[in-house]
Amino acid sequence: MEDANYVLLGVPLDSTSTYRPGSRFGPAAIREASWNLETYCIRNNLDVEDFKIHDLGDLNIFGDVGDTLKRLKQVISDTLESNKIPITLGGEHTITYGCVEAFHDIAILSFDAHMDLRDKYLGLELSHATFMRRLCESLGSDRIVEVGIRAFSKEELDYANKENLRYITSMEIKRQKPEQIVKDIQDALSNFERIYLTIDMDVLDPSFAPAVGNPIPEGLSPHLLLNILQSLCNHKIVGFDLVELTPHYDSGITSIQAAHIIFNILSFLESTK
Amino acid sequence: MEDANYVLLGVPLDSTSTYRPGSRFGPAAIREASWNLETYCIRNNLDVEDFKIHDLGDLNIFGDVGDTLKRLKQVISDTLESNKIPITLGGEHTITYGCVEAFHDIAILSFDAHMDLRDKYLGLELSHATFMRRLCESLGSDRIVEVGIRAFSKEELDYANKENLRYITSMEIKRQKPEQIVKDIQDALSNFERIYLTIDMDVLDPSFAPAVGNPIPEGLSPHLLLNILQSLCNHKIVGFDLVELTPHYDSGITSIQAAHIIFNILSFLESTK
Amino acid sequence: MEDANYVLLGVPLDSTSTYRPGSRFGPAAIREASWNLETYCIRNNLDVEDFKIHDLGDLNIFGDVGDTLKRLKQVISDTLESNKIPITLGGEHTITYGCVEAFHDIAILSFDAHMDLRDKYLGLELSHATFMRRLCESLGSDRIVEVGIRAFSKEELDYANKENLRYITSMEIKRQKPEQIVKDIQDALSNFERIYLTIDMDVLDPSFAPAVGNPIPEGLSPHLLLNILQSLCNHKIVGFDLVELTPHYDSGITSIQAAHIIFNILSFLESTK
Amino acid sequence: MEDANYVLLGVPLDSTSTYRPGSRFGPAAIREASWNLETYCIRNNLDVEDFKIHDLGDLNIFGDVGDTLKRLKQVISDTLESNKIPITLGGEHTITYGCVEAFHDIAILSFDAHMDLRDKYLGLELSHATFMRRLCESLGSDRIVEVGIRAFSKEELDYANKENLRYITSMEIKRQKPEQIVKDIQDALSNFERIYLTIDMDVLDPSFAPAVGNPIPEGLSPHLLLNILQSLCNHKIVGFDLVELTPHYDSGITSIQAAHIIFNILSFLESTK
Amino acid sequence: MEDANYVLLGVPLDSTSTYRPGSRFGPAAIREASWNLETYCIRNNLDVEDFKIHDLGDLNIFGDVGDTLKRLKQVISDTLESNKIPITLGGEHTITYGCVEAFHDIAILSFDAHMDLRDKYLGLELSHATFMRRLCESLGSDRIVEVGIRAFSKEELDYANKENLRYITSMEIKRQKPEQIVKDIQDALSNFERIYLTIDMDVLDPSFAPAVGNPIPEGLSPHLLLNILQSLCNHKIVGFDLVELTPHYDSGITSIQAAHIIFNILSFLESTK
Amino acid sequence: MEDANYVLLGVPLDSTSTYRPGSRFGPAAIREASWNLETYCIRNNLDVEDFKIHDLGDLNIFGDVGDTLKRLKQVISDTLESNKIPITLGGEHTITYGCVEAFHDIAILSFDAHMDLRDKYLGLELSHATFMRRLCESLGSDRIVEVGIRAFSKEELDYANKENLRYITSMEIKRQKPEQIVKDIQDALSNFERIYLTIDMDVLDPSFAPAVGNPIPEGLSPHLLLNILQSLCNHKIVGFDLVELTPHYDSGITSIQAAHIIFNILSFLESTK
Repeated sequence: MEDANYVLLGVPLDSTSTYRPGSRFGPAAIREASWNLETYCIRNNLDVEDFKIHDLGDLNIFGDVGDTLKRLKQVISDTLESNKIPITLGGEHTITYGCVEAFHDIAILSFDAHMDLRDKYLGLELSHATFMRRLCESLGSDRIVEVGIRAFSKEELDYANKENLRYITSMEIKRQKPEQIVKDIQDALSNFERIYLTIDMDVLDPSFAPAVGNPIPEGLSPHLLLNILQSLCNHKIVGFDLVELTPHYDSGITSIQAAHIIFNILSFLESTK
Repeated sequence: MEDANYVLLGVPLDSTSTYRPGSRFGPAAIREASWNLETYCIRNNLDVEDFKIHDLGDLNIFGDVGDTLKRLKQVISDTLESNKIPITLGGEHTITYGCVEAFHDIAILSFDAHMDLRDKYLGLELSHATFMRRLCESLGSDRIVEVGIRAFSKEELDYANKENLRYITSMEIKRQKPEQIVKDIQDALSNFERIYLTIDMDVLDPSFAPAVGNPIPEGLSPHLLLNILQSLCNHKIVGFDLVELTPHYDSGITSIQAAHIIFNILSFLESTK
Repeated sequence: MEDANYVLLGVPLDSTSTYRPGSRFGPAAIREASWNLETYCIRNNLDVEDFKIHDLGDLNIFGDVGDTLKRLKQVISDTLESNKIPITLGGEHTITYGCVEAFHDIAILSFDAHMDLRDKYLGLELSHATFMRRLCESLGSDRIVEVGIRAFSKEELDYANKENLRYITSMEIKRQKPEQIVKDIQDALSNFERIYLTIDMDVLDPSFAPAVGNPIPEGLSPHLLLNILQSLCNHKIVGFDLVELTPHYDSGITSIQAAHIIFNILSFLESTK
Repeated sequence: MEDANYVLLGVPLDSTSTYRPGSRFGPAAIREASWNLETYCIRNNLDVEDFKIHDLGDLNIFGDVGDTLKRLKQVISDTLESNKIPITLGGEHTITYGCVEAFHDIAILSFDAHMDLRDKYLGLELSHATFMRRLCESLGSDRIVEVGIRAFSKEELDYANKENLRYITSMEIKRQKPEQIVKDIQDALSNFERIYLTIDMDVLDPSFAPAVGNPIPEGLSPHLLLNILQSLCNHKIVGFDLVELTPHYDSGITSIQAAHIIFNILSFLESTK
Repeated sequence: MEDANYVLLGVPLDSTSTYRPGSRFGPAAIREASWNLETYCIRNNLDVEDFKIHDLGDLNIFGDVGDTLKRLKQVISDTLESNKIPITLGGEHTITYGCVEAFHDIAILSFDAHMDLRDKYLGLELSHATFMRRLCESLGSDRIVEVGIRAFSKEELDYANKENLRYITSMEIKRQKPEQIVKDIQDALSNFERIYLTIDMDVLDPSFAPAVGNPIPEGLSPHLLLNILQSLCNHKIVGFDLVELTPHYDSGITSIQAAHIIFNILSFLESTK
Repeated sequence: MEDANYVLLGVPLDSTSTYRPGSRFGPAAIREASWNLETYCIRNNLDVEDFKIHDLGDLNIFGDVGDTLKRLKQVISDTLESNKIPITLGGEHTITYGCVEAFHDIAILSFDAHMDLRDKYLGLELSHATFMRRLCESLGSDRIVEVGIRAFSKEELDYANKENLRYITSMEIKRQKPEQIVKDIQDALSNFERIYLTIDMDVLDPSFAPAVGNPIPEGLSPHLLLNILQSLCNHKIVGFDLVELTPHYDSGITSIQAAHIIFNILSFLESTK
């Protein structure tokens, strides 16, 4: 662990989900899929086997979400103090809140079909449907970019517009060239030196990622997502997570996509070290 | 119900299917999926929750297909008499015959992988594989446009060509710009003021809609289908159905696609009222 | 059988697979799917029902892979001697080795996500992960073109580059026009008059073909694959196989894709007879 | 076929089912399961491989149930004329009607969870829920014994009681010794020399046979069923069928149970030839 | 509703589950299964269709478990005030706590594989693993009988023994005659006039009920469970629930078992009114 | 590891299977199931958490079965030399051969539906269908008892009878009292002081264990199996394995049964130390 550059942590938290549960099985499924994927990344000719990654295993989950997030924040803080990049495997998207809390002076680049900007959801202030609102309130909405958005309520849209939160819908992504999307994102985050990346698997189209908590039509392909990420992943990315995989809802391809995305992000980060 | 603009009816008819049965479970699956989808439609900023829709529940199915279709025609007629737009959830494609029978002076815009133009199928004159032939005979083939076609017999093709029935294959759609496809369809239907829209879920590619009675490769994406529909759905559309979902053949994504398509068509119709 | 032009053989061999087993169920699944597909091929207006195909059923599998491959070679040789085109349904990709052994002066056009160029795999010299290396050694690497490649080890890549083996990654295919890919393949094989075609179903993207032994993201669509094959399938193709379908891993769409590809290849070959 | 003693016929009829469709896939699933079962029957030390069985394949199904049943009757009649024992694989239970029609002076021994004694069902006079009523009317209710019954309407029960139809519930079977049940059945059928045996897979408990059209709790175990059948199967049994397997609803065990039951019945019949 | 004797309520609560989630889908699955079951109960010749049952639909679930339980208690209280018998469909077993809170002077008869007697579980005082401990503390352990128990920790066993809580393991049930088990339960509850019955589906053996949150081997059969319940269900039973069905984990038989148990309990209660 | 009494090893070998593959996934599935089972064993009031068990993880599998078995034998030998009890998780039943080879002066108690006594199978001398024949040849058939047998060929039966191999069919077990079966087994093995126990999951009835390579009807219940094992497991048992779980063929209950059996055997052994 001492000489690792990346620290991996599973967070099988799955208690505020409201549609299809089971993201608790996500970390195990990603690990199993990763054992059967080639580690060589052809986009930049790097081999994940050569990277220094330490797997902490899974966080113990408490019955109270707040307790779990506090413990998560602590583990991420410890990782950051030893100058390593934390990689967190969900679990529901709420865990991003716990991760981000551990960083200082951070901006957020989120790939997600949903805005997660509700004020309360089923009476809860902190859940997978509200956590980004909480982060807007604590960080400021100028520090957040949401990409791949295509499902939200009128309330969330109004909030985003009022707060000038930058979002890019999947419709917009399909209409534009990838280079333009990359540029738009870079512009929106140009003021910030430290960026946390979060990927909700539902940003992908359900044809590629059927096993997610809340599948939404008209999403991105993994090919396009990785092309965009390749241009965005550089030294500014100081941590990332991948969430909302519910592996029981297919026969394995969503888990494989998740592992493939993580391998590629690692290779992008390694190539710009 | 009095002030509803749209009347929804499930028709769990599934008795002439010959490959993968189970479209009888379609209406229930679409309703369940719709409860978990955001109702806000981002293509035109309308919220389905604001529309006036009345759900009649499911039609009672008789053992004899003809009896069921007669009863279906009656319910649709009642809906039309009160100046509402009927929306029918299948069930097998044969139900379109019962729906169309209730209209006067109608043309048909069909999205389907199949032509359904056989003269008889397994000895039946009225089944999911022949109903469009029956409609050609009763309405005239100039009143029918079939879009997304890619599976048919030589007999069906010869009939379509002989009758000058307008069809557009999925190959053609992939080769052309969507605008051209829209224009071709509009031209073919320019003489008619009242159009009935029917969507067989198998018009979509099996990657997006694996849970259909008869999946056919090389189909459309939901994104493309909705882009085309957005340009075509206006005041001329006086009723529509969505059929052939067999939800037991996947873990939910085809049902979600079906609900998403219905929400969007509703928003298109509402925006042109 | 006497007047058949094509001879079909199932080879339910599935013993060296290392990730998801079950390609032994492939031949049965393809046959069942083929009974429910329309036989009319719209790309060139030919009907598979008019072709002269003889189905030999399935090869008896021995416990020892080498014994099975020997027997397979014999059946293919017999087919060739009677001037028919052998079509082999896998089973694991290793069977291609047995098929190719039966030909003289042959080149190989392979569509696959993997290179299968390892020297040994789990101690075996002949397995699904090494058979192409063996064929390179026996035929010469100039006689092999691998298309759709996107998963391999550093060792395999180095070997391919050292041996000047021609490969085209799926990334390259997505970047180029199909016509260019076709031309590149034709150029690479221009010296050879007899070409054996092998299609590993994992060349397709997992969204289209989830039920394969080793699904790899960022693959081809069936539409693109068939467009490329349409330009390549001519009198030079003297045999082909389709392998690595593991039908238990989905609800049927991969089997349907496999049958659809086979129907189309048959129509391409028939149209250039 | 000439010297066969048993003639096997699949009847993939599945059009009047009202709950879980898919018995059309039954014959194929039973055949596949039978290839993987040991053929040696340990109850009486006979090997099914030594029996003379001819498999006719599957009956062509017509869209109209009546047409299919007429054709079925014809095939069974042909079989009987050549002094062979017909074995029919369903398909829905309605096919028993077509089979029985081919016999003269026949009594029926039915193992089923349901009475199938409705007068009409969804308006149909001949369906899986009414066919036994039709047989009562044509043969006389004294020629019918229903065993394993546990699901029926008040109407059916009243009819059975009024007509003195002999039925034995699964509750009664569980309370009694198997020998007593056997004796009760033998007594009820003692006047008849020719008995047709029909087995609806739902007579088994859903734990043993989950993949049936209409699973009913508190059924029989295969062990008990076979113990009872062993005492009942003798030269009087002149034909039998096994129906209502819907193989898509499990991962194979119901199909294996079906094949196991058929193998055992064959061995019982063979041992009393 | 006014003249109903039974009031049905679904509670799709599923947030403290720790193994297999999805009991939130339980109420919908039970209702769907019930539509396809015969309503006639053969144990006592009563037809559920003749009973007066009002279905309230599903309770709205809050993000906070305590809030949901408070609302549940209120609905049950309202039901009791109008002298009706509440029937609650889970959802996780925690909901029993909310139900029981609405009764006065109540004893509990629980059929469950687990004791649910932990003091805290993952830091929570109120969850599916602790709620029976809470009820012991509030009601007194002499008012609780747990039947079918076979999975617990040393801590739970010690607590049960210390508190003289009466439990009967599934081993004991299998060793004894059902009559003795019935007598033991009646003796244990003889001091109480009002009994609340709760059935965790995992009391059944996983062969009969595979789709539960936490399947435990060596459980009861539905036949035995119903035989015992038939002797215990009388006027003393003033309410009951059935919980922990997770329908996505099988193809329907556990839901059918659940509906069958509820139909039978209703018939038992009705026959002793 | 130093002070462990039991050493656990997974052997994901799955290459000679001929029906349903996937026992390679067995060890992982058993471990996952064991994490969610209560560790307290109620048959003898012992807690598995208190036992000293060391998990070696999974053996590396070679492509050649013989190489894998040699390596397996070595690991088991090492375990025995340090006076620990080896517990092996399959994988296919062939691995028992590798385990047994490591012992001296050993007898075998096998619970299995099959005899595995073929001389060759598909040309192989060492496979899941022949390994017990090989053990008969090397150890002598008097050292082997097969319990729960119900599927075999005439050849295997003749061999067993000729060699006086002691076998007890599942039919016999169902007819007798468990005490008698225990006594029969003890008598057959009374000359031997060191017994190796092997449990093929298919000894269980498919209702309890659907996810096995080769399910055979009319098997044992886990309750009966454990009752028999409880009387047989004592200091004579010097090692055991559990094999042929193919977890992809159900939703988890067979894996849970496997873990439950292992926990109980451990408690039996511990209680007689």
